[in-house]
Amino acid sequence: MKALIIGVGNIGKQLLKMARFEKVYAFDKYRRSYIPDVQWLEEFHVPEDVDTVVECASQKAVKEYSSQILKSSVNYLIVSTSAFADRTFRELFFEELKRSPARVFFPSGAIGGLDLISAIRDTVEQVIIETKKHPRSLDVSVEGETTVFEGSVEEAAKLFPRNINIASTVGLVVGFERVKVIIKSDSSLSHNVHNIRVFSSIGTYEFRIENLPSPENPKTSMVTVYSILKTIESLDSKIVFE
Amino acid sequence: MKALIIGVGNIGKQLLKMARFEKVYAFDKYRRSYIPDVQWLEEFHVPEDVDTVVECASQKAVKEYSSQILKSSVNYLIVSTSAFADRTFRELFFEELKRSPARVFFPSGAIGGLDLISAIRDTVEQVIIETKKHPRSLDVSVEGETTVFEGSVEEAAKLFPRNINIASTVGLVVGFERVKVIIKSDSSLSHNVHNIRVFSSIGTYEFRIENLPSPENPKTSMVTVYSILKTIESLDSKIVFE
Repeated sequence: MKALIIGVGNIGKQLLKMARFEKVYAFDKYRRSYIPDVQWLEEFHVPEDVDTVVECASQKAVKEYSSQILKSSVNYLIVSTSAFADRTFRELFFEELKRSPARVFFPSGAIGGLDLISAIRDTVEQVIIETKKHPRSLDVSVEGETTVFEGSVEEAAKLFPRNINIASTVGLVVGFERVKVIIKSDSSLSHNVHNIRVFSSIGTYEFRIENLPSPENPKTSMVTVYSILKTIESLDSKIVFE
Repeated sequence: MKALIIGVGNIGKQLLKMARFEKVYAFDKYRRSYIPDVQWLEEFHVPEDVDTVVECASQKAVKEYSSQILKSSVNYLIVSTSAFADRTFRELFFEELKRSPARVFFPSGAIGGLDLISAIRDTVEQVIIETKKHPRSLDVSVEGETTVFEGSVEEAAKLFPRNINIASTVGLVVGFERVKVIIKSDSSLSHNVHNIRVFSSIGTYEFRIENLPSPENPKTSMVTVYSILKTIESLDSKIVFE
């Protein structure tokens, strides 16, 4: 696999450390550090020999580079799905994808259960995603447990832009109009808790996710890194769990 | 896609109705019914033009036909994963897979969260799968809520062979020795409830699954059918959620 990694923050660095690439390019608008065997790009472009592009930079990067990436015949893994909470960008992206030779992959990221939600998407009536974080992580100052937001993914994207990758990924699967976001601040929490409830005509499902913070960067959990690695591996693996 | 469906019970029938195949063969040792456009095989074999084989028959079928299927260059989707609770068969299968041109897919079936469990499998310490069913579904006669089994997947496979596809799939992902099965009988239940708790060094996860019975066959839920359809579609889809 010949890969291009966009964004070399905590997730990108871990990927470069843990994944086995035949050849790997990296692009980061703001940072660059010495990592063995990595070829850094000065300007953003998709080198001709690249077959897999992994975005783990920011929703801004998704919006800025997707048009260019969709011109190439690559597997394109998108982590910063919050970009898709913007309806104008979303419609443009899927319009371009129709004429694109690329395949797009949304790794499940920090959550689980996307396998089931994606399989039964046509039967889903509503998904309620409740995220509980320490007030520090939400830039609010309230004591105890307080609901700080309740509403649509699009509204949440404006008020809490760094906290809606999960809701956006679910929105992409079942339709944004079917997703309700609840954000709670809880000063007693040591880590984030996500609770995803799925109401469908064929059953009800609840996924509770408590990711411990990564020792190197408390803002990211290792689960996102593992989820990208799984998607990369399954691209040419002999055994696939879906 | 040119497919071979093994087993035309409730799941197989729904698949033949809902999936879009370019060409489709079916094999069932015991049943045959008229379904438009389906070519029935008299004897089991993998026709030369088939690119995708879907097993939705029984663990016996998995054990009987896998060797033959693994000789072909096909995508092989296995639903009756309980076959793998048998260690002798399991070791043989994965030995044969090493030399096989086939790719094997385990659809998430009746559960969700396999995406996350599979991504973080190296960090998993234990998975506890608690299944609650009506005593009728377990062939036991006890009142109220009673624990009827607690132990390993292998033991469960001997006592409750029709109830361990979920535990076997999870066992295949994290290793059978890390999975504990609890089976409870509850005469007040109208549908099955599965609770999967995952203990890992990077977080804890809980997936609660309540599948309503399919109107055509109360023993199967539609979620399994949708999960197979999703895997089939993702084989050549432009957008993949993992």
